[in-house]
Amino acid sequence: MTWLTLGLVQQDCTTDAEQNRQASATKIKELAAQGAQLVLLQELHAGLYFCQTENTECFEQAEDIEQGASRRFFEALAAELDLTLVVSLFEKRAPGLYHNTALVFDGLAGYKGLYRKMHIPDDPAFYEKFYFTPGDASPKDPLAGFRPIETRHGKLGVLVCWDQWYPEAARLMALAGADLLLYPTAIGWDPNDTAEEKQRQLDAWMLVQRGHAVANGLPVIVANRVGHEASQDPNASGIDFWGNSFVAGPQGELLAWANHQEPCQLLVELDLKRSEEVRRIWPFLRDRRVDAYGNLTERFLP
Amino acid sequence: MTWLTLGLVQQDCTTDAEQNRQASATKIKELAAQGAQLVLLQELHAGLYFCQTENTECFEQAEDIEQGASRRFFEALAAELDLTLVVSLFEKRAPGLYHNTALVFDGLAGYKGLYRKMHIPDDPAFYEKFYFTPGDASPKDPLAGFRPIETRHGKLGVLVCWDQWYPEAARLMALAGADLLLYPTAIGWDPNDTAEEKQRQLDAWMLVQRGHAVANGLPVIVANRVGHEASQDPNASGIDFWGNSFVAGPQGELLAWANHQEPCQLLVELDLKRSEEVRRIWPFLRDRRVDAYGNLTERFLP
Repeated sequence: MTWLTLGLVQQDCTTDAEQNRQASATKIKELAAQGAQLVLLQELHAGLYFCQTENTECFEQAEDIEQGASRRFFEALAAELDLTLVVSLFEKRAPGLYHNTALVFDGLAGYKGLYRKMHIPDDPAFYEKFYFTPGDASPKDPLAGFRPIETRHGKLGVLVCWDQWYPEAARLMALAGADLLLYPTAIGWDPNDTAEEKQRQLDAWMLVQRGHAVANGLPVIVANRVGHEASQDPNASGIDFWGNSFVAGPQGELLAWANHQEPCQLLVELDLKRSEEVRRIWPFLRDRRVDAYGNLTERFLP
Repeated sequence: MTWLTLGLVQQDCTTDAEQNRQASATKIKELAAQGAQLVLLQELHAGLYFCQTENTECFEQAEDIEQGASRRFFEALAAELDLTLVVSLFEKRAPGLYHNTALVFDGLAGYKGLYRKMHIPDDPAFYEKFYFTPGDASPKDPLAGFRPIETRHGKLGVLVCWDQWYPEAARLMALAGADLLLYPTAIGWDPNDTAEEKQRQLDAWMLVQRGHAVANGLPVIVANRVGHEASQDPNASGIDFWGNSFVAGPQGELLAWANHQEPCQLLVELDLKRSEEVRRIWPFLRDRRVDAYGNLTERFLP
């Protein structure tokens, strides 16, 4: 197996979770019909991005990862289409303990594992620290939360949104053997920002993730939400989710990218041999100064 | 002090070290006359890039960092022009112990510190492991080799060439308080590569470094060598050093960039307030999972 046909779905969402799941399913089926073997959905695709305000009622949207509607729906769909599917949901782990979680289903083999978002943002209109407990880094877990999920299409280094700004997260997945890095995402513009600031933010977002591809010699796949969503706060301006879902190869080269304004899907043929070729000419893993990196576990050093 | 006028010099070189130093000085003086307060030179600017082959005679080019010609020349020049200067040289530390070293001179205050390249490449035409001992990561040094150099224009996170592919190096400098990241560089194309591969390599090189700017909310300044240099190996094709020296702001935005074919200099007004502004809207340092990064000191994990 040296080629992988990869799909991703860029959606806008409604308040109706079942309608959103059906919309995802329609696109996944289209991609499957075109040959997709692995499909990535965006972050929290079952609903609106509720983190624009802090509201205890939103916890009602959280799901059990074993018995919840999203688990049952997408696990069945992955089996029906016999493809590998990466989905994202608001997990209720226990009363008062919630996560932003990705699940992987591998065709007929079903559920293969989860990733709980490790880095949680909190800034105006993205109040995620109110809702999501960061993923565990238990001392009992030798991979401390950054565990690729094994599928027949390779080890998936699934990370979520805010994680995408952290080179540490990408590196740890690569060191744990990830073959691909995948980022379900929900990021957008403050409508009040200038056009120049919006462009800088979008560019920075692509740069840093394409940089992870380069630094680790791995493809990076990013599915982002699209469209305007109003805030529950009448004084807030809502978010213009910026789409621009993309796939980059192991030199950071753009293989496919989406628009910034409409739902769409991408289908990409990925040459899995290329990572090995690139890592031979740029053997960054060979020369890491593991003897000198101890301070990466410090907050600040001066 | 919120604005810094920054210069960098992109050169081609000859076999004559004194001639190369004079060429650097001419450009530095031009930049100083235009108001430059801080100037960065490219990697190993006193000579040709000798690492294209492994030849014991090349060790003759190495210099003492206290008494060598480059030290004396550039320290005097920085004092004469009263500017901050980042230079690069082949250091002879002891018989059989050589480094690829950057020195910083701060105007009349003179020598302020050094950085010894921590990551050393070795691939065809870049046989640096033969020449350069990697910089120390002594357990006695709390910063393990990644120590910013304090000047009146801020703490300079000086790194060198191959270091530029390592997010760990950029992060450690940022955690140690660096205000700017600076990369003296000598990178180029294998003339036999296809145009597509050359473009991917150049793009990757800019991407990963602009990514460091984004991930750390810091400006990145890169001075690269330019021009073709033949190899001493008659079967080798030499290197087309690709220039493209550049300055990026703390969102990775390109503020200035050079051509790929000719010596030149860049002069940039850098708004030092911008890092603080960017780090407030994107507080990546706040959310680092220092409890989960311990495996970054491992070579590989599966």
